[in-house]
Amino acid sequence: MSIPRRILEERFRRFVEEDIGHGDVTTEYTIPNGTVVTAHIIAKEAGVIAGIEEASMFIESFGLEVDPLIEDGSKIRERTPILHIEGDAATLLSIERTLLNLLSRMSGIATTTNRLLEKIYQAGYKTRVASTRKTAPGLLHFDKKAVIIGRGDAHRRGLDDMVLIKDNHISIVGSAKEAIEKVRERVSFSKKIEVEVTNIDDALEAAKTGVDIIMLDNFSPKQAKEAIDLLERNQLRTKVLVEASGGITEQNILEYASTGVDVVSLGEITHSAKVLDISLDIINIKKQKF
Amino acid sequence: MSIPRRILEERFRRFVEEDIGHGDVTTEYTIPNGTVVTAHIIAKEAGVIAGIEEASMFIESFGLEVDPLIEDGSKIRERTPILHIEGDAATLLSIERTLLNLLSRMSGIATTTNRLLEKIYQAGYKTRVASTRKTAPGLLHFDKKAVIIGRGDAHRRGLDDMVLIKDNHISIVGSAKEAIEKVRERVSFSKKIEVEVTNIDDALEAAKTGVDIIMLDNFSPKQAKEAIDLLERNQLRTKVLVEASGGITEQNILEYASTGVDVVSLGEITHSAKVLDISLDIINIKKQKF
Amino acid sequence: MSIPRRILEERFRRFVEEDIGHGDVTTEYTIPNGTVVTAHIIAKEAGVIAGIEEASMFIESFGLEVDPLIEDGSKIRERTPILHIEGDAATLLSIERTLLNLLSRMSGIATTTNRLLEKIYQAGYKTRVASTRKTAPGLLHFDKKAVIIGRGDAHRRGLDDMVLIKDNHISIVGSAKEAIEKVRERVSFSKKIEVEVTNIDDALEAAKTGVDIIMLDNFSPKQAKEAIDLLERNQLRTKVLVEASGGITEQNILEYASTGVDVVSLGEITHSAKVLDISLDIINIKKQKF
Amino acid sequence: MSIPRRILEERFRRFVEEDIGHGDVTTEYTIPNGTVVTAHIIAKEAGVIAGIEEASMFIESFGLEVDPLIEDGSKIRERTPILHIEGDAATLLSIERTLLNLLSRMSGIATTTNRLLEKIYQAGYKTRVASTRKTAPGLLHFDKKAVIIGRGDAHRRGLDDMVLIKDNHISIVGSAKEAIEKVRERVSFSKKIEVEVTNIDDALEAAKTGVDIIMLDNFSPKQAKEAIDLLERNQLRTKVLVEASGGITEQNILEYASTGVDVVSLGEITHSAKVLDISLDIINIKKQKF
Amino acid sequence: MSIPRRILEERFRRFVEEDIGHGDVTTEYTIPNGTVVTAHIIAKEAGVIAGIEEASMFIESFGLEVDPLIEDGSKIRERTPILHIEGDAATLLSIERTLLNLLSRMSGIATTTNRLLEKIYQAGYKTRVASTRKTAPGLLHFDKKAVIIGRGDAHRRGLDDMVLIKDNHISIVGSAKEAIEKVRERVSFSKKIEVEVTNIDDALEAAKTGVDIIMLDNFSPKQAKEAIDLLERNQLRTKVLVEASGGITEQNILEYASTGVDVVSLGEITHSAKVLDISLDIINIKKQKF
Amino acid sequence: MSIPRRILEERFRRFVEEDIGHGDVTTEYTIPNGTVVTAHIIAKEAGVIAGIEEASMFIESFGLEVDPLIEDGSKIRERTPILHIEGDAATLLSIERTLLNLLSRMSGIATTTNRLLEKIYQAGYKTRVASTRKTAPGLLHFDKKAVIIGRGDAHRRGLDDMVLIKDNHISIVGSAKEAIEKVRERVSFSKKIEVEVTNIDDALEAAKTGVDIIMLDNFSPKQAKEAIDLLERNQLRTKVLVEASGGITEQNILEYASTGVDVVSLGEITHSAKVLDISLDIINIKKQKF
Repeated sequence: MSIPRRILEERFRRFVEEDIGHGDVTTEYTIPNGTVVTAHIIAKEAGVIAGIEEASMFIESFGLEVDPLIEDGSKIRERTPILHIEGDAATLLSIERTLLNLLSRMSGIATTTNRLLEKIYQAGYKTRVASTRKTAPGLLHFDKKAVIIGRGDAHRRGLDDMVLIKDNHISIVGSAKEAIEKVRERVSFSKKIEVEVTNIDDALEAAKTGVDIIMLDNFSPKQAKEAIDLLERNQLRTKVLVEASGGITEQNILEYASTGVDVVSLGEITHSAKVLDISLDIINIKKQKF
Repeated sequence: MSIPRRILEERFRRFVEEDIGHGDVTTEYTIPNGTVVTAHIIAKEAGVIAGIEEASMFIESFGLEVDPLIEDGSKIRERTPILHIEGDAATLLSIERTLLNLLSRMSGIATTTNRLLEKIYQAGYKTRVASTRKTAPGLLHFDKKAVIIGRGDAHRRGLDDMVLIKDNHISIVGSAKEAIEKVRERVSFSKKIEVEVTNIDDALEAAKTGVDIIMLDNFSPKQAKEAIDLLERNQLRTKVLVEASGGITEQNILEYASTGVDVVSLGEITHSAKVLDISLDIINIKKQKF
Repeated sequence: MSIPRRILEERFRRFVEEDIGHGDVTTEYTIPNGTVVTAHIIAKEAGVIAGIEEASMFIESFGLEVDPLIEDGSKIRERTPILHIEGDAATLLSIERTLLNLLSRMSGIATTTNRLLEKIYQAGYKTRVASTRKTAPGLLHFDKKAVIIGRGDAHRRGLDDMVLIKDNHISIVGSAKEAIEKVRERVSFSKKIEVEVTNIDDALEAAKTGVDIIMLDNFSPKQAKEAIDLLERNQLRTKVLVEASGGITEQNILEYASTGVDVVSLGEITHSAKVLDISLDIINIKKQKF
Repeated sequence: MSIPRRILEERFRRFVEEDIGHGDVTTEYTIPNGTVVTAHIIAKEAGVIAGIEEASMFIESFGLEVDPLIEDGSKIRERTPILHIEGDAATLLSIERTLLNLLSRMSGIATTTNRLLEKIYQAGYKTRVASTRKTAPGLLHFDKKAVIIGRGDAHRRGLDDMVLIKDNHISIVGSAKEAIEKVRERVSFSKKIEVEVTNIDDALEAAKTGVDIIMLDNFSPKQAKEAIDLLERNQLRTKVLVEASGGITEQNILEYASTGVDVVSLGEITHSAKVLDISLDIINIKKQKF
Repeated sequence: MSIPRRILEERFRRFVEEDIGHGDVTTEYTIPNGTVVTAHIIAKEAGVIAGIEEASMFIESFGLEVDPLIEDGSKIRERTPILHIEGDAATLLSIERTLLNLLSRMSGIATTTNRLLEKIYQAGYKTRVASTRKTAPGLLHFDKKAVIIGRGDAHRRGLDDMVLIKDNHISIVGSAKEAIEKVRERVSFSKKIEVEVTNIDDALEAAKTGVDIIMLDNFSPKQAKEAIDLLERNQLRTKVLVEASGGITEQNILEYASTGVDVVSLGEITHSAKVLDISLDIINIKKQKF
Repeated sequence: MSIPRRILEERFRRFVEEDIGHGDVTTEYTIPNGTVVTAHIIAKEAGVIAGIEEASMFIESFGLEVDPLIEDGSKIRERTPILHIEGDAATLLSIERTLLNLLSRMSGIATTTNRLLEKIYQAGYKTRVASTRKTAPGLLHFDKKAVIIGRGDAHRRGLDDMVLIKDNHISIVGSAKEAIEKVRERVSFSKKIEVEVTNIDDALEAAKTGVDIIMLDNFSPKQAKEAIDLLERNQLRTKVLVEASGGITEQNILEYASTGVDVVSLGEITHSAKVLDISLDIINIKKQKF
């Protein structure tokens, strides 16, 4: 657990607050005070489940009891119960949709990430699959966590996580070389430095400066292969990590993996992943004395 | 503008705060204080743009100047500049990703919604396309706004927006009839009432109680047609709005439209819409005196 | 319970935080650490109690135990104990005033609302008594909840709750008719539409457009009666709900009820209701070991 | 201005946020983007206006221009324009109700406070009229500010403002004397100490301990007079301030003033003051280019 | 306990949230889910411990169990265990540094304050040692609380706590006399008034106006003595409290105490106190079943 | 500027809010509405100024105009004006103390950091001086920023910034080797890894695993030298960065620098730095028309 429950609870509260607005009127008018239910959250599709830990905190923070039935990262078949819940019916119905939205999104991201990774591993490559910062606004933590659960690499978790010199920084400073020098003068010893390059020559130049990682931006697989070969010929391949990014999709990912790059990163695993279909079934109802 | 700028600004601040964490270190180390840039936000794909109003408020709230180049809801061709920005370079680079994430998501939702709608209209139907509450957590407002910009119907904007009696409410209360009665006793005159039904008989029963809207839940197009027919035979068709929901996709949406239901609603236009590819180009750099 | 405890707790925290400021110095200097007390909250006046549910959440959220002795909406005689509390003395004394302020206000509103309603029912009318949005700033939820507990109609719970076209909207758009048309083009099927009218002809016009509710603004009882008659003569009375608003007081409310309007709404039940006198009695003191 | 604008703005934002919820749908559907209006806020009743400063900050913080037409504390006749506003129509209509609620409440409190004070002064007394902490939850600042504008004494602005030993503190500690001693041992030199007494003997005892203020709790005017006399006979009258509290109303306030107490405090000027009728008139409409 | 737990918890959450950012990655990668540890917090240096109450709330609010081993204000020898903690290892490690930072700072302030006080008492004086508002931003409450635990006087806890007319107020108003008059006209009876003076004559003038406290600003001990003498000669010494402030240090504090002033106040006990060295030792590890 | 103004403004607001509480009563009672002043912030001591950028944002966010007179990181002589301010007097006086507290603390930290660094550089070493996370709670950003301005190395800016395996992680996992392996399996390619060692053998073992940085925890200078020698003999010195931490002070820092470690880190530059004496002088007063 990398973010304490108390901090995440505040985010869950805000999510629900937006939906609930002036009150869940349907629940208010239909559910008798003190009704207690037991319910299952069920994944209706097969996939990799993510969000069990977050959902458990979410549910408990609203005063309900929860029993996780599987662990985060489990590959499950369709119609698998994943969480068992017991508690106040009105509260459960009021948070149901928000809770399912979180689980469905996280599981969708984990499932997509994992599918790409398996494709690569089954083809015999060891390339890492990394996410980008192309997440939904406000969901950086949850989207990245889902990528990790799907066995992907989170890459930078935020703008503070590593120095990543991109095209816009370079165009303002004047050249990648100058940008790297400026960073070197001031950066903490605790940070890695990555630089984005747009052609093979720049890749070589960047590697010579001793940066930790080079990002090949929008290289075709063929160009990426040439960059790798050039680094090897210059005996720089072992000194630098190489990431390919831009234009990578589920269709062409193996071509990129075959070039020998260390990492491929793609935005679509977070910004456009199909959610996993997950729903809530009430399995028992009892009336508690007030 | 339905939510004042001041309130949305707070949400933009939170989005950026999550990404920026302890500081945008790349910008900190590379961009000289006082650098001012002009930039374009460019839609790289064709689609329906949504989020121009939100993005403008976002940008201004961080102290930059903005000129919208198109209006929300515009259908644009690929590589269309949509916003012109001028201001402090470090600030712009620090908010760039979050801003693009918002615009891409909203435009993706608007584009998808609009495509479905056009399909229906071109086939000669008048069925409304509505979203559900299956949005990304915390983005209810932005996701619903994008649906509206895509000419869809937002449906309930939150749990407080209309009474919608669903399966879980009914299973707790005992029957749809009883649930409707309980609501009637207490509901404000200002609220509409919708009830979810799972078979044709229940649809008829519900219509007889005088609810405003009936949701046919997971009906096949054939079943939906039968329900409509039954309502007509009982002279209830004009007294109630009929919504089909569950299992509706881009593939089968015309079949549903053809049944005569008033509204079709689907979660995938918000929870799994492919984002529109939008990026930021810096077009001019000047150094301001400190 | 229409808003989950977790969300309301945050509001209670803010209320107390304002009062407590840099600390409850009296408690700090007088109450020994670890002192535990039992206390009663007592309604010193007769009335309709509202806020039992909120007060219970409030008290528990500050770590004290609470036993409600009556239910929300109960009509009680003077000097009735309504809540039993046990826990840390310093905490209880620090929240006492804020807690009583909430209970007194909510009960005052419920009592006033209920008194008007009884007056109407005892005179043999069925007119609903509705509140307006003339509440205390920040207390919309609590004020409206109190109205409901007093058996009134909450009316719109906020600006998002129904379309209500008022004089200022009409003056900007040009005419009520045009305003209604603009709304119709874009409004979700899930929303009702109400329009404010200032004379009998406009009332008829509005009813003809098919809006759900007509608000007779500042009509005298005589004018209201004429409007109702006109609608009946035009066979529109059953198609539209009629609300009278403006200038209605406890004194003239029966005159309005007698006109046949469906709803009377008045601001004074929320903005100027006399609070109910409620206080806290400590009934037992014990010293807990530290 | 005792609380900087930036801090109050946050409270205004929260007030509006509660009302606006998922968006002001009426404005959204009726008011064209870019409509600019001029408006007056008008006090429809005579009274003492309070909240001009707060309302001005409120309006400006939402991006509108404001011109105060009178100063806080002005006594105005009915139908006096008090603020002139210009700006975006949709924003103004979205904040209108919340703004008026704040102004009406504050002006109602100031008017009531001032009326009591004038009554006392016209009868030739110099007794101060003080409020209590019986305010609306979350409105402590605004309610107290209104009392001050009405020329009343705010008394403690919160629990941190002075030591005020009340019955409940005394019952826990054992005796007023002991409570005062405990406070004396630890209290900062910067704080005054007040103690609540319930009979004449205790008043004398308390005065002897050298506390700064004695609160005669629920004393009849006759008892209050006796307490004053007793203090004078013991030559303690000049050494201590005397406050009468509990059971004081507009009806009996002169009787209390006549006893010679320094201060009378009463909750009803904040918790149950009738609000002043204030409304917004749009006086000019123009369409701004988008 | 002068601020309820619920309110302080929110501040603890914010402190941790800043440090934790996108997650405690070390803990995330090393500590197995469900690991439970027992730990001691140990003061490695001798001193006066402050923050036991706050730390206990802090720890519990993050879901861990805590047993205070000593009370706030205890003078301890080096290597004294002060808190016993049990609970989830990952959570404990994530809050460890923030928790220790709070305890170390508060204990450093209490230790410094107490050392000065003892110096004064051992020299036979009764002068109070007070803090100023020169605290760390955002830590006013914790810094002042630590001063109190060290037996110092908190002085004003914030800008709302007493009227303190300083040089800048005087320079704007024109003279101390005028400033005092302006305050007198409007101030609540519940507030004390202190005025800062910069020479002996002003001290006398101020005392004559009847203010409660005079602050001798940057007086040398000799000047302070002269001021005290002058007040005595004018028979005003018993009517006013005298505080010396500015330029007072651990070195010269006895000289000030010897002048007969009632209070000496110094900023360095809060703004530059050396923290007490406190650390966390894990003493037992067990693996809990998931 | 690494954190956008909008985000920092929120923190400034909170700082002031705590101090201001129910209102700055002194200002309220003495400063006429509409008074405008010009003022200088003056460093009364020589040192390295930090916080100019933050203070400027702070001041502007409260509606005042500011002109920085020097840049962050400037070494100034005593009595140097550093900021010029113009605006509303009441607002300025209300934020004065909080503003000075921030500037004094940041400048104190920068001055201390810089002094240590100069000592090292003047002795001919190139050792970096780094801070730890031993900051004041809630001030991580400001304390770290001040270290950077003083030319120190911020080290980890928070728990998310690098993997740093410390004694407590190791004791839970079993051994440093195992901990490093666990991290390696899961860590993102974007993160560096540092491990804390307590003896020379462990330092060698850690270097062999290929971690990026080794922290020599509480090594004497002699032990540190031995560790460096051992790494050199094993040809690992160039492959790993070496940090010395624990027990380092201004007195012994040169001894550590002489050992050849790359970085020395010490808590006292943030947790116990003496603040720089900075104050506000009003230099001109004018009365603005209301």
